[in-house]
Amino acid sequence: MGTTQVEYDAALQQARTGFDEGGIPIGAALWRDGQLLGVGRNRRMQQGSAILHGEIDCLNTVGRLTDYRGTTLYTTLSPCSMCAGAIALFQIPEVIVGEATTFPGEIEFLRERGVRVEVIDDPVATDLLARFAANNPEAWSEDIGGR
Amino acid sequence: MGTTQVEYDAALQQARTGFDEGGIPIGAALWRDGQLLGVGRNRRMQQGSAILHGEIDCLNTVGRLTDYRGTTLYTTLSPCSMCAGAIALFQIPEVIVGEATTFPGEIEFLRERGVRVEVIDDPVATDLLARFAANNPEAWSEDIGGR
Repeated sequence: MGTTQVEYDAALQQARTGFDEGGIPIGAALWRDGQLLGVGRNRRMQQGSAILHGEIDCLNTVGRLTDYRGTTLYTTLSPCSMCAGAIALFQIPEVIVGEATTFPGEIEFLRERGVRVEVIDDPVATDLLARFAANNPEAWSEDIGGR
Repeated sequence: MGTTQVEYDAALQQARTGFDEGGIPIGAALWRDGQLLGVGRNRRMQQGSAILHGEIDCLNTVGRLTDYRGTTLYTTLSPCSMCAGAIALFQIPEVIVGEATTFPGEIEFLRERGVRVEVIDDPVATDLLARFAANNPEAWSEDIGGR
């Protein structure tokens, strides 16, 4: 991970905060040129929101940008189709993914749309989510559109 | 349109409300079995939000659902990749689109994911958005990830 450790940790810290709140522990952070533009975390449990996944919450916090060139989105879990669609829409060029084991996500879709994706296999992100899902299997399934 | 007129009008009314607020006039409504589950509209201008497209705002208003079976999402404009991704994630089975002229959206993606999509070519939806975009071309471009 090298120089991306600080950047990724901003996303992981959001996942930890979400876990401590009883939420689904997935976090995200948007950076550009060493500057943190915003962070977010999944808020399904905290706010009863279906759409505030970590990445969406992060982009909402960042607010309006006319251009996402040069940004990197860090997320602790591989993006679902909604979050991947947002990344493609705004042409965010790079996504660093904590893990894609718990949920494979839409990495191929992102690459087809020209996004550079790297999966760093962070066991901390996997463990946080495994602990949540073990205690809240229905909420976790609901969050990723399971039936 | 037949029996869908009332359902679609709930989305169109949201677009009109958005226009009157100075917002990007795109609205959405989620229905099931003749019951309105929630409505939403684009809030980029009103709330400085990048992610509150009409469909996303609508799904946020609806809140947590364990199952979207039997729902139909009405939207005045063809869904972008973020909104289409949300529809795919939650397996919303049917989307009625007001128009796909101003913005083609991700209709093929939705069909590939098994969503039934119908475009009704509503000139009122097109006109509202044309009037907004003529006066706010940069905000409109920003909303759909243009550069």
